[in-house]
Amino acid sequence: MTTLKVIKIGGNIIDDANALGQFLNGFASLKAPKILVHGGGKLASKLAEQMRVAVNMIGGRRITDQATLDIITMVYAGKINKNIVAKLQAQHCNAMGFTGADGNTIVSEKRAVNTIDYGFAGDVKKVNTALLEVLLKTNTTPVFCAITHDENGQLLNTNADTIASELAIGFASKYKTELYYCFEKNGVLLDVNNEDSVIENIDVKTYQNLIDTDCISEGMLPKLNNCFHAIKHKVNKVCIGKTDMLFNTQIKYTTIQK
Amino acid sequence: MTTLKVIKIGGNIIDDANALGQFLNGFASLKAPKILVHGGGKLASKLAEQMRVAVNMIGGRRITDQATLDIITMVYAGKINKNIVAKLQAQHCNAMGFTGADGNTIVSEKRAVNTIDYGFAGDVKKVNTALLEVLLKTNTTPVFCAITHDENGQLLNTNADTIASELAIGFASKYKTELYYCFEKNGVLLDVNNEDSVIENIDVKTYQNLIDTDCISEGMLPKLNNCFHAIKHKVNKVCIGKTDMLFNTQIKYTTIQK
Repeated sequence: MTTLKVIKIGGNIIDDANALGQFLNGFASLKAPKILVHGGGKLASKLAEQMRVAVNMIGGRRITDQATLDIITMVYAGKINKNIVAKLQAQHCNAMGFTGADGNTIVSEKRAVNTIDYGFAGDVKKVNTALLEVLLKTNTTPVFCAITHDENGQLLNTNADTIASELAIGFASKYKTELYYCFEKNGVLLDVNNEDSVIENIDVKTYQNLIDTDCISEGMLPKLNNCFHAIKHKVNKVCIGKTDMLFNTQIKYTTIQK
Repeated sequence: MTTLKVIKIGGNIIDDANALGQFLNGFASLKAPKILVHGGGKLASKLAEQMRVAVNMIGGRRITDQATLDIITMVYAGKINKNIVAKLQAQHCNAMGFTGADGNTIVSEKRAVNTIDYGFAGDVKKVNTALLEVLLKTNTTPVFCAITHDENGQLLNTNADTIASELAIGFASKYKTELYYCFEKNGVLLDVNNEDSVIENIDVKTYQNLIDTDCISEGMLPKLNNCFHAIKHKVNKVCIGKTDMLFNTQIKYTTIQK
Protein backbone atom coordinates (compact mmCIF):
# COMPACT_ATOMS: atom_id res chain seq x y z
CA MET A 1 0.00 0.00 0.00
CA THR A 2 1.26 3.48 -0.90
CA THR A 3 1.85 5.86 2.00
CA LEU A 4 -0.16 9.12 2.04
CA LYS A 5 1.04 11.90 4.34
CA VAL A 6 -1.55 14.39 5.62
CA ILE A 7 0.29 17.33 7.19
CA LYS A 8 -1.35 20.13 9.13
CA ILE A 9 0.44 23.40 9.82
CA GLY A 10 -0.78 26.14 12.14
CA GLY A 11 -0.35 29.81 12.95
CA ASN A 12 3.27 29.59 14.09
CA ILE A 13 4.27 28.73 10.50
CA ILE A 14 1.59 30.70 8.61
CA ASP A 15 2.35 33.95 10.42
CA ASP A 16 6.12 33.79 9.86
CA ALA A 17 7.08 34.28 6.19
CA ASN A 18 10.56 32.80 6.69
CA ALA A 19 9.33 29.76 8.58
CA LEU A 20 6.60 29.23 5.96
CA GLY A 21 9.03 29.51 3.06
CA GLN A 22 11.44 27.07 4.68
CA PHE A 23 8.66 24.62 5.51
CA LEU A 24 7.22 24.74 1.98
CA ASN A 25 10.64 23.99 0.47
CA GLY A 26 10.84 20.94 2.71
CA PHE A 27 7.23 19.93 2.08
CA ALA A 28 7.77 20.15 -1.71
CA SER A 29 10.66 17.70 -1.39
CA LEU A 30 8.58 15.08 0.47
CA LYS A 31 7.57 12.10 -1.61
CA ALA A 32 4.01 12.33 -3.00
CA PRO A 33 1.18 11.50 -2.44
CA LYS A 34 0.70 14.13 0.25
CA ILE A 35 -1.94 16.61 1.39
CA LEU A 36 -1.32 19.89 3.19
CA VAL A 37 -3.88 21.42 5.56
CA HIS A 38 -3.33 24.93 6.87
CA GLY A 39 -4.93 27.01 9.58
CA GLY A 40 -5.44 30.72 9.39
CA GLY A 41 -3.09 32.27 11.89
CA LYS A 42 -3.48 35.85 12.95
CA LEU A 43 -4.11 37.35 9.52
CA ALA A 44 -7.89 37.05 9.75
CA SER A 45 -8.00 38.90 13.06
CA LYS A 46 -5.70 41.55 11.63
CA LEU A 47 -7.94 42.06 8.60
CA ALA A 48 -11.03 42.13 10.85
CA GLU A 49 -9.39 44.91 12.81
CA GLN A 50 -8.58 46.86 9.63
CA MET A 51 -12.17 46.44 8.48
CA ARG A 52 -13.46 47.23 11.97
CA VAL A 53 -15.27 43.90 12.28
CA ALA A 54 -15.42 42.77 15.91
CA VAL A 55 -13.59 39.52 16.67
CA ASN A 56 -15.62 37.33 19.05
CA MET A 57 -13.93 34.32 20.58
CA ILE A 58 -15.53 31.99 23.12
CA GLY A 59 -13.33 29.32 24.67
CA GLY A 60 -10.69 29.81 21.96
CA ARG A 61 -13.27 29.38 19.19
CA ARG A 62 -14.13 32.13 16.78
CA ILE A 63 -17.79 33.11 16.52
CA THR A 64 -18.37 33.25 12.77
CA ASP A 65 -20.96 35.84 11.77
CA GLN A 66 -21.42 36.76 8.08
CA ALA A 67 -18.77 39.52 8.13
CA THR A 68 -16.30 37.15 9.81
CA LEU A 69 -17.07 34.36 7.34
CA ASP A 70 -16.32 36.76 4.47
CA ILE A 71 -13.03 37.70 6.12
CA ILE A 72 -11.86 34.14 6.72
CA THR A 73 -12.92 33.15 3.20
CA MET A 74 -10.79 35.99 1.85
CA VAL A 75 -7.82 35.29 4.10
CA TYR A 76 -7.80 31.48 4.32
CA ALA A 77 -9.03 30.50 0.83
CA GLY A 78 -7.63 33.59 -0.88
CA LYS A 79 -4.45 35.14 0.44
CA ILE A 80 -2.95 32.28 2.46
CA ASN A 81 -4.04 29.35 0.30
CA LYS A 82 -3.09 30.87 -3.05
CA ASN A 83 0.29 32.11 -1.87
CA ILE A 84 1.09 28.64 -0.51
CA VAL A 85 0.01 27.08 -3.82
CA ALA A 86 2.14 29.52 -5.85
CA LYS A 87 5.18 28.95 -3.60
CA LEU A 88 4.82 25.16 -3.91
CA GLN A 89 4.53 25.47 -7.70
CA ALA A 90 7.84 27.36 -7.67
CA GLN A 91 9.34 24.27 -5.98
CA HIS A 92 7.87 22.00 -8.69
CA CYS A 93 5.21 20.61 -6.37
CA ASN A 94 1.97 20.59 -8.37
CA ALA A 95 -0.23 22.06 -5.63
CA MET A 96 -3.95 22.74 -5.95
CA GLY A 97 -5.90 24.79 -3.40
CA PHE A 98 -9.13 23.56 -1.85
CA THR A 99 -11.95 24.47 0.41
CA GLY A 100 -14.34 21.61 1.13
CA ALA A 101 -16.72 23.19 -1.40
CA ASP A 102 -14.23 22.68 -4.22
CA GLY A 103 -15.09 19.38 -5.87
CA ASN A 104 -17.53 18.82 -2.97
CA THR A 105 -14.60 17.28 -1.12
CA ILE A 106 -15.63 18.02 2.50
CA VAL A 107 -19.24 18.38 3.59
CA SER A 108 -20.07 19.84 7.00
CA GLU A 109 -23.17 20.76 8.90
CA LYS A 110 -23.62 24.07 10.64
CA ARG A 111 -23.03 23.58 14.33
CA ALA A 112 -26.33 23.36 16.20
CA VAL A 113 -27.05 26.23 18.57
CA ASN A 114 -27.15 25.05 22.17
CA THR A 115 -25.94 27.51 24.77
CA ILE A 116 -23.59 29.18 22.30
CA ASP A 117 -24.32 30.21 18.70
CA TYR A 118 -21.04 29.72 16.86
CA GLY A 119 -22.55 31.17 13.68
CA PHE A 120 -21.23 29.78 10.39
CA ALA A 121 -19.10 27.09 12.01
CA GLY A 122 -19.20 23.64 10.47
CA ASP A 123 -18.61 20.17 11.84
CA VAL A 124 -17.36 17.68 9.26
CA LYS A 125 -19.99 15.17 8.15
CA LYS A 126 -18.43 13.54 5.10
CA VAL A 127 -15.20 13.47 3.09
CA ASN A 128 -15.50 12.60 -0.61
CA THR A 129 -12.20 11.07 -1.62
CA ALA A 130 -12.90 9.94 -5.21
CA LEU A 131 -11.93 13.17 -6.96
CA LEU A 132 -8.96 13.75 -4.64
CA GLU A 133 -7.76 10.24 -5.40
CA VAL A 134 -7.82 10.99 -9.13
CA LEU A 135 -5.73 14.08 -8.43
CA LEU A 136 -3.28 12.29 -6.13
CA LYS A 137 -2.75 9.75 -8.90
CA THR A 138 -1.78 12.53 -11.33
CA ASN A 139 0.80 13.65 -8.75
CA THR A 140 -1.23 16.70 -7.71
CA THR A 141 -0.91 17.88 -4.11
CA PRO A 142 -4.15 19.16 -2.53
CA VAL A 143 -3.74 22.13 -0.17
CA PHE A 144 -6.75 22.55 2.11
CA CYS A 145 -7.74 25.63 4.05
CA ALA A 146 -10.10 25.47 7.02
CA ILE A 147 -13.35 26.12 5.14
CA THR A 148 -16.00 23.58 4.16
CA HIS A 149 -19.60 23.78 2.88
CA ASP A 150 -23.02 22.32 3.63
CA GLU A 151 -23.98 21.33 0.04
CA ASN A 152 -26.69 24.00 0.17
CA GLY A 153 -24.52 26.93 -0.85
CA GLN A 154 -23.25 27.85 2.60
CA LEU A 155 -19.53 28.06 3.32
CA LEU A 156 -18.60 27.06 6.89
CA ASN A 157 -15.60 27.86 9.08
CA THR A 158 -14.16 24.49 10.11
CA ASN A 159 -11.40 23.45 12.47
CA ALA A 160 -8.21 22.71 10.49
CA ASP A 161 -7.12 19.90 12.86
CA THR A 162 -10.44 18.17 12.24
CA ILE A 163 -10.14 18.61 8.47
CA ALA A 164 -6.71 16.97 8.62
CA SER A 165 -7.89 14.00 10.71
CA GLU A 166 -11.04 13.47 8.62
CA LEU A 167 -9.00 13.54 5.39
CA ALA A 168 -6.55 10.99 6.83
CA ILE A 169 -9.46 8.79 7.97
CA GLY A 170 -11.18 9.16 4.59
CA PHE A 171 -8.11 7.77 2.82
CA ALA A 172 -7.26 5.08 5.40
CA SER A 173 -8.80 2.27 3.34
CA LYS A 174 -6.92 3.27 0.18
CA TYR A 175 -3.53 4.34 1.50
CA LYS A 176 -1.30 3.72 4.46
CA THR A 177 -2.12 7.15 5.94
CA GLU A 178 0.13 9.18 8.19
CA LEU A 179 -1.18 12.26 9.97
CA TYR A 180 1.23 14.96 11.19
CA TYR A 181 0.13 17.83 13.40
CA CYS A 182 2.84 20.48 13.25
CA PHE A 183 2.74 23.15 15.93
CA GLU A 184 5.07 25.36 17.97
CA LYS A 185 6.21 22.73 20.48
CA ASN A 186 8.33 19.59 20.23
CA GLY A 187 5.30 17.42 20.99
CA VAL A 188 3.07 16.72 23.94
CA LEU A 189 5.15 17.87 26.90
CA LEU A 190 5.09 16.43 30.41
CA ASP A 191 6.15 19.86 31.62
CA VAL A 192 4.76 22.57 29.36
CA ASN A 193 7.76 24.79 30.14
CA ASN A 194 10.33 22.18 29.24
CA GLU A 195 10.75 21.42 25.53
CA ASP A 196 12.89 18.40 26.46
CA SER A 197 10.02 16.71 28.31
CA VAL A 198 8.42 15.32 25.12
CA ILE A 199 6.24 12.28 25.75
CA GLU A 200 7.34 10.18 22.80
CA ASN A 201 4.48 7.69 22.87
CA ILE A 202 0.94 8.12 24.10
CA ASP A 203 -1.66 5.37 23.99
CA VAL A 204 -5.24 5.42 25.25
CA LYS A 205 -4.17 4.24 28.69
CA THR A 206 -1.33 6.74 29.23
CA TYR A 207 -3.59 9.45 27.79
CA GLN A 208 -6.20 8.78 30.47
CA ASN A 209 -3.45 8.88 33.12
CA LEU A 210 -2.20 12.21 31.77
CA ILE A 211 -5.72 13.66 31.88
CA ASP A 212 -6.34 12.31 35.38
CA THR A 213 -3.12 13.86 36.65
CA ASP A 214 -3.88 17.20 34.94
CA CYS A 215 -0.78 16.92 32.75
CA ILE A 216 -2.55 17.88 29.50
CA SER A 217 -3.16 21.59 28.95
CA GLU A 218 -6.68 22.55 27.91
CA GLY A 219 -5.51 23.64 24.47
CA MET A 220 -4.02 20.22 23.76
CA LEU A 221 -7.19 18.26 24.53
CA PRO A 222 -9.07 18.83 21.23
CA LYS A 223 -5.86 18.13 19.27
CA LEU A 224 -5.30 14.87 21.13
CA ASN A 225 -8.95 13.90 20.73
CA ASN A 226 -8.52 14.36 16.97
CA CYS A 227 -5.41 12.18 17.14
CA PHE A 228 -7.14 9.31 18.95
CA HIS A 229 -10.17 9.65 16.68
CA ALA A 230 -7.83 9.17 13.69
CA ILE A 231 -5.94 6.25 15.23
CA LYS A 232 -9.22 4.52 16.08
CA HIS A 233 -10.33 4.90 12.46
CA LYS A 234 -7.35 3.10 10.93
CA VAL A 235 -4.98 5.97 10.32
CA ASN A 236 -1.61 4.27 10.43
CA LYS A 237 0.52 6.85 12.16
CA VAL A 238 -0.37 10.05 14.04
CA CYS A 239 2.36 12.43 15.19
CA ILE A 240 2.53 15.79 16.97
CA GLY A 241 5.55 18.06 17.00
CA LYS A 242 7.51 20.71 15.18
CA THR A 243 7.75 20.58 11.38
CA ASP A 244 11.32 19.29 11.89
CA MET A 245 9.84 15.86 12.67
CA LEU A 246 9.09 15.53 8.93
CA PHE A 247 12.63 16.12 7.78
CA ASN A 248 14.99 15.18 10.61
CA THR A 249 15.03 11.64 11.96
CA GLN A 250 17.00 12.74 15.04
CA ILE A 251 14.24 14.95 16.36
CA LYS A 252 11.91 13.92 19.19
CA TYR A 253 8.15 14.20 18.81
CA THR A 254 4.99 12.56 20.10
CA THR A 255 3.51 9.50 18.41
CA ILE A 256 -0.05 8.48 19.22
CA GLN A 257 -0.74 4.78 19.60
CA LYS A 258 -3.86 2.69 20.01
CA MET B 1 -16.11 15.93 -30.88
CA THR B 2 -17.63 16.92 -27.53
CA THR B 3 -18.54 20.60 -27.13
CA LEU B 4 -16.84 22.56 -24.33
CA LYS B 5 -18.39 25.88 -23.31
CA VAL B 6 -16.09 28.52 -21.78
CA ILE B 7 -18.24 31.25 -20.27
CA LYS B 8 -16.96 34.53 -18.89
CA ILE B 9 -19.07 36.71 -16.61
CA GLY B 10 -18.21 40.22 -15.50
CA GLY B 11 -18.98 42.83 -12.89
CA ASN B 12 -22.61 43.37 -13.86
CA ILE B 13 -23.37 39.81 -12.69
CA ILE B 14 -20.79 39.51 -9.88
CA ASP B 15 -21.91 42.72 -8.18
CA ASP B 16 -25.61 41.83 -8.18
CA ALA B 17 -26.44 38.93 -5.82
CA ASN B 18 -29.81 38.26 -7.49
CA ALA B 19 -28.39 38.31 -11.01
CA LEU B 20 -25.51 36.08 -9.91
CA GLY B 21 -27.82 33.56 -8.23
CA GLN B 22 -30.07 33.42 -11.26
CA PHE B 23 -27.13 33.04 -13.63
CA LEU B 24 -25.54 30.26 -11.55
CA ASN B 25 -28.79 28.29 -11.53
CA GLY B 26 -28.86 28.51 -15.30
CA PHE B 27 -25.15 27.75 -15.63
CA ALA B 28 -25.51 24.66 -13.42
CA SER B 29 -28.19 23.34 -15.80
CA LEU B 30 -25.98 23.70 -18.90
CA LYS B 31 -24.61 20.45 -20.22
CA ALA B 32 -21.03 19.73 -19.11
CA PRO B 33 -18.18 19.97 -19.97
CA LYS B 34 -18.06 23.68 -19.21
CA ILE B 35 -15.70 26.20 -17.62
CA LEU B 36 -16.69 29.42 -15.87
CA VAL B 37 -14.39 32.45 -15.75
CA HIS B 38 -15.30 35.38 -13.55
CA GLY B 39 -14.03 38.92 -13.21
CA GLY B 40 -13.85 40.78 -9.95
CA GLY B 41 -16.43 43.52 -10.13
CA LYS B 42 -16.40 46.38 -7.68
CA LEU B 43 -15.75 44.34 -4.51
CA ALA B 44 -11.97 44.70 -4.72
CA SER B 45 -12.15 48.49 -4.95
CA LYS B 46 -14.63 48.51 -2.05
CA LEU B 47 -12.30 46.44 0.12
CA ALA B 48 -9.34 48.61 -0.89
CA GLU B 49 -11.31 51.63 0.30
CA GLN B 50 -12.14 49.93 3.62
CA MET B 51 -8.47 49.05 4.05
CA ARG B 52 -7.40 52.51 2.88
CA VAL B 53 -5.34 51.16 0.02
CA ALA B 54 -5.26 53.60 -2.89
CA VAL B 55 -6.83 52.33 -6.12
CA ASN B 56 -4.73 53.31 -9.14
CA MET B 57 -6.23 52.85 -12.59
CA ILE B 58 -4.54 53.86 -15.84
CA GLY B 59 -6.58 53.55 -19.02
CA GLY B 60 -9.11 51.31 -17.27
CA ARG B 61 -6.39 48.97 -16.01
CA ARG B 62 -5.65 48.49 -12.34
CA ILE B 63 -2.08 49.13 -11.21
CA THR B 64 -1.34 46.12 -9.03
CA ASP B 65 1.05 46.89 -6.20
CA GLN B 66 1.61 44.33 -3.40
CA ALA B 67 -1.27 45.62 -1.25
CA THR B 68 -3.61 45.56 -4.26
CA LEU B 69 -2.48 42.05 -5.23
CA ASP B 70 -3.30 40.87 -1.70
CA ILE B 71 -6.73 42.47 -1.96
CA ILE B 72 -7.62 40.95 -5.32
CA THR B 73 -6.30 37.56 -4.20
CA MET B 74 -8.61 37.76 -1.18
CA VAL B 75 -11.62 39.02 -3.13
CA TYR B 76 -11.31 37.16 -6.45
CA ALA B 77 -9.83 33.80 -5.32
CA GLY B 78 -11.42 33.92 -1.86
CA LYS B 79 -14.79 35.57 -1.43
CA ILE B 80 -16.12 35.60 -5.00
CA ASN B 81 -14.68 32.32 -6.23
CA LYS B 82 -15.59 30.22 -3.19
CA ASN B 83 -19.12 31.60 -2.95
CA ILE B 84 -19.67 30.79 -6.63
CA VAL B 85 -18.30 27.28 -6.09
CA ALA B 86 -20.54 26.69 -3.04
CA LYS B 87 -23.61 28.01 -4.89
CA LEU B 88 -22.94 25.76 -7.89
CA GLN B 89 -22.48 22.77 -5.56
CA ALA B 90 -25.94 23.52 -4.14
CA GLN B 91 -27.23 23.14 -7.73
CA HIS B 92 -25.43 19.79 -8.09
CA CYS B 93 -22.79 21.22 -10.39
CA ASN B 94 -19.46 19.81 -9.17
CA ALA B 95 -17.53 23.08 -9.31
CA MET B 96 -13.88 23.52 -8.40
CA GLY B 97 -12.24 26.91 -7.97
CA PHE B 98 -9.00 27.84 -9.69
CA THR B 99 -6.37 30.46 -10.02
CA GLY B 100 -3.78 29.75 -12.69
CA ALA B 101 -1.43 28.68 -9.88
CA ASP B 102 -3.74 25.80 -8.89
CA GLY B 103 -2.51 22.74 -10.72
CA ASN B 104 -0.18 25.08 -12.66
CA THR B 105 -3.05 25.57 -15.10
CA ILE B 106 -2.25 29.08 -16.38
CA VAL B 107 1.25 30.50 -16.50
CA SER B 108 1.80 34.21 -17.10
CA GLU B 109 4.69 36.59 -17.19
CA LYS B 110 4.79 39.85 -15.33
CA ARG B 111 4.06 42.65 -17.76
CA ALA B 112 7.27 44.38 -18.80
CA VAL B 113 7.67 47.96 -17.64
CA ASN B 114 7.71 50.37 -20.56
CA THR B 115 6.17 53.76 -19.97
CA ILE B 116 3.78 52.38 -17.34
CA ASP B 117 4.58 49.98 -14.50
CA TYR B 118 1.45 47.88 -14.06
CA GLY B 119 2.96 46.12 -11.06
CA PHE B 120 1.91 42.50 -10.52
CA ALA B 121 -0.05 42.23 -13.74
CA GLY B 122 0.43 39.10 -15.81
CA ASP B 123 0.10 38.33 -19.50
CA VAL B 124 -0.81 34.72 -20.25
CA LYS B 125 2.07 32.67 -21.62
CA LYS B 126 0.80 29.09 -21.43
CA VAL B 127 -2.31 27.10 -20.54
CA ASN B 128 -1.76 23.55 -19.24
CA THR B 129 -4.86 21.59 -20.15
CA ALA B 130 -3.90 18.03 -19.10
CA LEU B 131 -5.07 18.21 -15.50
CA LEU B 132 -8.17 20.21 -16.42
CA GLU B 133 -9.03 17.59 -19.00
CA VAL B 134 -8.85 14.86 -16.34
CA LEU B 135 -11.24 16.93 -14.22
CA LEU B 136 -13.63 17.69 -17.09
CA LYS B 137 -13.80 13.96 -17.75
CA THR B 138 -14.89 13.33 -14.15
CA ASN B 139 -17.69 15.86 -14.73
CA THR B 140 -15.97 18.55 -12.64
CA THR B 141 -16.58 22.17 -13.63
CA PRO B 142 -13.55 24.47 -13.24
CA VAL B 143 -14.32 28.01 -12.06
CA PHE B 144 -11.46 30.41 -12.80
CA CYS B 145 -10.84 33.78 -11.22
CA ALA B 146 -8.62 36.39 -12.84
CA ILE B 147 -5.34 35.45 -11.14
CA THR B 148 -2.44 33.50 -12.60
CA HIS B 149 1.16 32.84 -11.56
CA ASP B 150 4.66 32.99 -13.04
CA GLU B 151 5.88 29.52 -11.86
CA ASN B 152 8.34 31.30 -9.58
CA GLY B 153 5.98 31.82 -6.67
CA GLN B 154 4.46 35.11 -7.82
CA LEU B 155 0.70 35.50 -8.23
CA LEU B 156 -0.30 37.88 -11.03
CA ASN B 157 -3.46 39.88 -11.69
CA THR B 158 -4.63 38.81 -15.15
CA ASN B 159 -7.42 39.99 -17.43
CA ALA B 160 -10.42 37.66 -17.13
CA ASP B 161 -11.38 38.05 -20.82
CA THR B 162 -7.89 36.88 -21.78
CA ILE B 163 -8.05 33.92 -19.38
CA ALA B 164 -11.32 32.87 -21.00
CA SER B 165 -10.00 33.13 -24.56
CA GLU B 166 -6.71 31.37 -23.72
CA LEU B 167 -8.60 28.51 -22.02
CA ALA B 168 -10.87 28.15 -25.05
CA ILE B 169 -7.85 28.17 -27.37
CA GLY B 170 -6.02 25.67 -25.14
CA PHE B 171 -8.86 23.18 -25.51
CA ALA B 172 -9.58 23.82 -29.20
CA SER B 173 -7.71 20.72 -30.37
CA LYS B 174 -9.52 18.45 -27.90
CA TYR B 175 -13.05 19.83 -27.88
CA LYS B 176 -15.35 21.78 -30.11
CA THR B 177 -14.92 24.94 -28.01
CA GLU B 178 -17.44 27.74 -27.65
CA LEU B 179 -16.49 30.99 -25.95
CA TYR B 180 -19.18 33.25 -24.48
CA TYR B 181 -18.43 36.75 -23.21
CA CYS B 182 -21.34 37.81 -21.03
CA PHE B 183 -21.61 41.50 -20.24
CA GLU B 184 -24.21 44.19 -19.60
CA LYS B 185 -25.23 44.79 -23.22
CA ASN B 186 -27.06 42.70 -25.80
CA GLY B 187 -23.90 42.44 -27.89
CA VAL B 188 -21.74 44.73 -29.99
CA LEU B 189 -24.06 47.66 -30.74
CA LEU B 190 -24.03 49.83 -33.82
CA ASP B 191 -25.44 52.61 -31.66
CA VAL B 192 -24.17 52.30 -28.09
CA ASN B 193 -27.40 53.89 -26.79
CA ASN B 194 -29.70 51.50 -28.62
CA GLU B 195 -29.88 47.94 -27.27
CA ASP B 196 -31.78 46.92 -30.41
CA SER B 197 -28.85 47.80 -32.67
CA VAL B 198 -27.01 44.51 -32.04
CA ILE B 199 -24.61 43.59 -34.83
CA GLU B 200 -25.39 39.89 -35.04
CA ASN B 201 -22.33 38.86 -37.02
CA ILE B 202 -18.91 40.42 -37.18
CA ASP B 203 -16.07 39.10 -39.29
CA VAL B 204 -12.57 40.49 -39.76
CA LYS B 205 -13.69 42.65 -42.67
CA THR B 206 -16.76 44.18 -41.00
CA TYR B 207 -14.68 44.63 -37.83
CA GLN B 208 -12.16 46.75 -39.73
CA ASN B 209 -15.00 48.78 -41.22
CA LEU B 210 -16.48 49.34 -37.75
CA ILE B 211 -13.13 50.51 -36.42
CA ASP B 212 -12.55 52.78 -39.44
CA THR B 213 -15.94 54.39 -38.96
CA ASP B 214 -15.41 54.81 -35.18
CA CYS B 215 -18.36 52.56 -34.39
CA ILE B 216 -16.52 50.51 -31.74
CA SER B 217 -16.23 52.09 -28.29
CA GLU B 218 -12.76 52.04 -26.76
CA GLY B 219 -13.85 49.62 -24.03
CA MET B 220 -15.00 47.07 -26.60
CA LEU B 221 -11.71 46.96 -28.51
CA PRO B 222 -9.74 44.65 -26.16
CA LYS B 223 -12.78 42.36 -25.85
CA LEU B 224 -13.13 42.11 -29.61
CA ASN B 225 -9.42 41.58 -30.03
CA ASN B 226 -9.69 38.63 -27.63
CA CYS B 227 -12.60 37.32 -29.70
CA PHE B 228 -10.73 37.45 -33.00
CA HIS B 229 -7.64 35.99 -31.36
CA ALA B 230 -9.78 33.02 -30.24
CA ILE B 231 -11.49 32.58 -33.62
CA LYS B 232 -8.12 32.66 -35.37
CA HIS B 233 -6.86 29.91 -33.02
CA LYS B 234 -9.58 27.40 -33.87
CA VAL B 235 -12.18 28.23 -31.23
CA ASN B 236 -15.38 27.11 -32.88
CA LYS B 237 -17.80 29.78 -31.78
CA VAL B 238 -17.29 33.15 -30.07
CA CYS B 239 -20.26 35.16 -28.81
CA ILE B 240 -20.80 38.43 -26.97
CA GLY B 241 -24.03 39.40 -25.22
CA LYS B 242 -26.11 39.16 -22.08
CA THR B 243 -26.16 35.86 -20.15
CA ASP B 244 -29.61 35.29 -21.69
CA MET B 245 -27.89 34.24 -24.92
CA LEU B 246 -26.93 30.99 -23.14
CA PHE B 247 -30.48 30.05 -22.18
CA ASN B 248 -32.85 31.70 -24.61
CA THR B 249 -32.67 30.92 -28.32
CA GLN B 250 -34.87 33.93 -29.16
CA ILE B 251 -32.36 36.47 -27.88
CA LYS B 252 -30.09 38.48 -30.17
CA TYR B 253 -26.34 38.63 -29.56
CA THR B 254 -23.12 39.10 -31.47
CA THR B 255 -21.30 36.18 -33.04
CA ILE B 256 -17.71 36.62 -34.17
CA GLN B 257 -16.73 35.01 -37.43
CA LYS B 258 -13.46 34.51 -39.29
